[in-house]
Amino acid sequence: MSESPSQTPDWIGVDWGTSRLRVFAMRGARCLDTRQSDQGMGKVAAEAFEPALLELIAPWLQAGQVMPVLACGMVGARQGWREAPYRAVPCAPVAAGKAVQVPTRDPRICVRILPGLRQSAPSDVMRGEETQIAGFLAQRPAFNGTILLPGTHCKHVQIEAGQVIGFTTHMTGELFALLAEKSVLRHSIAPHGTDPEAFAAGVAQGLAGGAFAALFALRAEALVADLTPTAARARLSGLLIGAELSQSELQTCVIIGSGDIAQAYQAALAQRGVVAELCDGADLVREGLTAYRLGDQK
Amino acid sequence: MSESPSQTPDWIGVDWGTSRLRVFAMRGARCLDTRQSDQGMGKVAAEAFEPALLELIAPWLQAGQVMPVLACGMVGARQGWREAPYRAVPCAPVAAGKAVQVPTRDPRICVRILPGLRQSAPSDVMRGEETQIAGFLAQRPAFNGTILLPGTHCKHVQIEAGQVIGFTTHMTGELFALLAEKSVLRHSIAPHGTDPEAFAAGVAQGLAGGAFAALFALRAEALVADLTPTAARARLSGLLIGAELSQSELQTCVIIGSGDIAQAYQAALAQRGVVAELCDGADLVREGLTAYRLGDQK
Repeated sequence: MSESPSQTPDWIGVDWGTSRLRVFAMRGARCLDTRQSDQGMGKVAAEAFEPALLELIAPWLQAGQVMPVLACGMVGARQGWREAPYRAVPCAPVAAGKAVQVPTRDPRICVRILPGLRQSAPSDVMRGEETQIAGFLAQRPAFNGTILLPGTHCKHVQIEAGQVIGFTTHMTGELFALLAEKSVLRHSIAPHGTDPEAFAAGVAQGLAGGAFAALFALRAEALVADLTPTAARARLSGLLIGAELSQSELQTCVIIGSGDIAQAYQAALAQRGVVAELCDGADLVREGLTAYRLGDQK
Repeated sequence: MSESPSQTPDWIGVDWGTSRLRVFAMRGARCLDTRQSDQGMGKVAAEAFEPALLELIAPWLQAGQVMPVLACGMVGARQGWREAPYRAVPCAPVAAGKAVQVPTRDPRICVRILPGLRQSAPSDVMRGEETQIAGFLAQRPAFNGTILLPGTHCKHVQIEAGQVIGFTTHMTGELFALLAEKSVLRHSIAPHGTDPEAFAAGVAQGLAGGAFAALFALRAEALVADLTPTAARARLSGLLIGAELSQSELQTCVIIGSGDIAQAYQAALAQRGVVAELCDGADLVREGLTAYRLGDQK
C-alpha cells in the first residue's frame, strides 16, 4: 500500500524556539501534518539537535530521498544548532537565498535555518518573529504601521513597504514574572486572575510615566489598605504594559497573538487612543516559512 | 572587682532589620559597646526573638535589675516579634510614648519597639528608616528638603519643620539585582565593577523616561556590538537610578549612606542639576534611638 503523492510532504517547516520545537509536514503551501515536543533550543546540547529533530520528523522521511527542512527561531542563535548570522534592518523580514545550511549526518535531510534580524542604533535583535512577520505580510502585503508581538519579550516592529525598518524589544513579560514571583511584591500578588479596573488604573499610571515609582505601592497598599492580590496582579500588569506603550510611536497597529495577553495589549492601546487589530499568530510562523520556501523556489 | 557606674549601660538600643541584628550598650547618649549577629528578622521564628536578643546582650545585664531595651526596624512588622502599628504621616519620625512594649520571659529586660511610618495616598510604608531620619534631624533640626536613603528599596523622604510629610519607596536596588542576576540580561552583565561613562549614559536615558525600553539593548548590544559586561552593569544601574530620580521632586537633598551606591546617587543627582550632600548613615540609627530615649525620659 502506498500513499498518494498528494499526501506526501515535499518539504518540512520547523519552528524551533527556546522552549518548544514544532514541525510541519508540508506539500507546497499545504500543511499535511504537524508534531511538536518540548525539546526547545534552551535544553538541547550541540550534538542533540539532529536527533531531537529526527525524533519528530522520521515518519515523514524516505530512504534514498533528500527532504528539504527549513527552520527558524533560536535554533539559529550562537548557542543553537548553527549560527545563522543576523540580517541588518531595514530589510524584508525574510529574503530568498539567505537561509544557512546546517551539516547533518542523516543523508535523508537537507536542513537550512533562516537568519534573525538585527538593528544597530539602538541595538536590538530578533529570531523567529521575523518569520511570523513574513507570514503576516504574505497575507497583508500592503500593511504599513506597527506590529506588536506580545510575549516574554514584546517586540514593536515598524513596517513600511514590506520592510522591517526598525524594532524595539520590551522585557515586559519577563519583568512581570520577576516582580510577581521573585520580588518583595510576591507576597501581595495572586498567582493568576485579573481585574479590568485595576488593570486600567495601572495602564493609566504607566502611560503617564509613573510605573517605576508605583511598584512598591502594590506591597504597601496590601499592608495598610485593602488591595487584593488579584487587583495587585492586574495593576502590576497594567503598569508595565502602560510603561511599554508610553515609549513607542504607535498609530496603525496590529497585535499578533491570542488569548488574555493579546486582549490586555488591545485594551491598553485603546486607553492610549489607538485602535489595534488582533491577528491570531498561531499559523504565522508556518506561513512565513512557506513564503520563504515558495519565494526561494522561484 | 566592680566596674565604675560610668561604664555600665543604663539602656540598650537595637537595630533589628530583615537580615541583621545590631545592639548598642548605651549610657545616656554615649555608646559603650556594640555587637551584632546575622539573626535578622527574616530568619528568626516567633519564639526565637528573645533568645536571639539575649545571646548578644546577656553580658550587659545584671540579675535583679531591669534594663530598658529600645528596638526599631522590621522586628516590629506583623511577621516580626510583635507588631508595632505604623504611625501615619505627616508626623515626626519618632514621637515620645509611641513605642510598643513586648512581653518577655526574662525579667531582666523591658523591651519596646518603635513603630514605622505609613502613608495613605499613595500607599507606602517604612520601618527603620524613620529612626535614621530622627538621628539625622537630631543633628540638623532645621533641615527642610528631601532625604534619600539608597538601598534595596530607596526611600525619598520629604521633611518639613521636623516632620515627615510624605515619602516614596523605589524598588531600584531589588530591580537591579533581579535584572542583573535573574533575567536574560544576566548573560551580558558583569558580577561587579563600574564604568562612569556608561553609568552617566544610563542616567541620562533614565532621566529622560526611556529606562524600560532601553533594558533589552543591554543584551542586544553585547550580541551585535561591543558592549562590555562592566559597561552593561554600569548602564543598567544608571538607567534604573535615572528612572527613579526622574520621578521625584528634588531640590534640597541629602543622601544618607556611604560607599559606591551613595556616590552613584550623588553623581546621578548632579546630572539632574541637584547638588546633594552625602551624610554617612552608619551611626544614625543609634542616634535616632537615643533621640527617642532622651525625649521619652523628659
